[in-house]
Amino acid sequence: MSVVADAAGPFRFVLVRTAHPGNIGSAARAIRTMGFTRMELVLPAHFPDPQATAMAAGADDVLGRAGVHGDMIAGLAGCSLALGLSARRRGVQLPEWSPRQAARHSLAAAARGGQVALVFGNERTGLENAELAHCHGMVRIPSVDDFSSLNLAQAVQVMAYELRLAMLDGAPEAPPAAADEPPADAVEMERFFAHLEQTLDDIDFHKGRTATTILLRLRKLFQRAQMDERELRILHGILADAQRMARLAGVAGKSATAD
Amino acid sequence: MSVVADAAGPFRFVLVRTAHPGNIGSAARAIRTMGFTRMELVLPAHFPDPQATAMAAGADDVLGRAGVHGDMIAGLAGCSLALGLSARRRGVQLPEWSPRQAARHSLAAAARGGQVALVFGNERTGLENAELAHCHGMVRIPSVDDFSSLNLAQAVQVMAYELRLAMLDGAPEAPPAAADEPPADAVEMERFFAHLEQTLDDIDFHKGRTATTILLRLRKLFQRAQMDERELRILHGILADAQRMARLAGVAGKSATAD
Repeated sequence: MSVVADAAGPFRFVLVRTAHPGNIGSAARAIRTMGFTRMELVLPAHFPDPQATAMAAGADDVLGRAGVHGDMIAGLAGCSLALGLSARRRGVQLPEWSPRQAARHSLAAAARGGQVALVFGNERTGLENAELAHCHGMVRIPSVDDFSSLNLAQAVQVMAYELRLAMLDGAPEAPPAAADEPPADAVEMERFFAHLEQTLDDIDFHKGRTATTILLRLRKLFQRAQMDERELRILHGILADAQRMARLAGVAGKSATAD
Repeated sequence: MSVVADAAGPFRFVLVRTAHPGNIGSAARAIRTMGFTRMELVLPAHFPDPQATAMAAGADDVLGRAGVHGDMIAGLAGCSLALGLSARRRGVQLPEWSPRQAARHSLAAAARGGQVALVFGNERTGLENAELAHCHGMVRIPSVDDFSSLNLAQAVQVMAYELRLAMLDGAPEAPPAAADEPPADAVEMERFFAHLEQTLDDIDFHKGRTATTILLRLRKLFQRAQMDERELRILHGILADAQRMARLAGVAGKSATAD
């Protein structure tokens, strides 16, 4: 399974909470025409499904290898860059890129040895903010304001098309950060966010205020930074020392839940 | 009718011998998302049709205005440039353009006052040679050789997308991050780094190791994130609480220099 995934190259298309199995099939066909084969499905409403197979129109290899996951983290495992497609401009602190810019960034990340996820939300509701929080950037297809919603498989087609063009174009953009360390993947980032959340409790950061908004902001900030593993180790170290201080102060765990 | 057509601008999408009415609807939606409204149907197998309406997902204006014609000439009436989409390289004496090149040629023709048709053949057989003979050029979407056939509506989407991009070209791109808070300036970042450095001393992070490399790494990480003022305030708050814990623990300042 992972051998097949590796053979598929560094790019994967992640479909989140897809309602209509026909769209999964159409998306499979779309990415296959552009030379991609890896699709990960997070909580699809129906899969496998005869409609998916019918609409794949022969891209059965893509459907057959598609992973089905219970949450986004699992679908993003191994990825150092996750870009979420979104039709709407939201009050989200994520960089917003065009499909063409996103394709260049994706290629640059792959050139640094990373795996890249293009993430597509539910047909009607798109990606929720909590789902976008796992992403490092947003991709907006430049549709018109009064009719902005592309069909899911057509959004997949546009993104796969730009990615293929960028690959055919050859030279990726100069990597923004000269990383000599492997980029942190989605699982490592989740572990960091869990550690951060626990530390904020331990040092009594919230002081009774609701934590959700702050945590979401911090999440976006650190996702945006596209950290490598060494940077994560440093931050874990800082958090651990802050927790140590809280323990010495006899404060730790006061407002935290057990374990 | 022709008044409406003129109001739609110089570009039209011509679908020839479309077999599945659902594809007509999907194509209508695709062109509508990219700001186009004019579709001409040559010998559609079924139209109007409830499936077309369903798949148009609200692009009813496009379907409602679509002309239905008995031959290609009628569908191309008034056009000075007709470009036929074709997945295959054929022995046809026509210039072959990428969608991006085709979009630029289309815009140039429109700038000279012409009307332009993007022409799409039957789902299974594409455009026949006799139909291509009405075209001035062929457009090939760069799909992979072993799976080259895009769904009709997806081919329409790619072409409409490139045409829209070409039209938007020249207009400035959206700013990379839609920030609702002012970005942190250099002075604020320096204050943050000073606070971070002091806090690392206070919580005894370095433990005798030299601090310079770590501080430089953290500096790069946070610079890269291009933070806004609200994010900085949150981070200052976290640092302040970590320092408070260190004071309560009686550790703060142990390894810090005076003041």
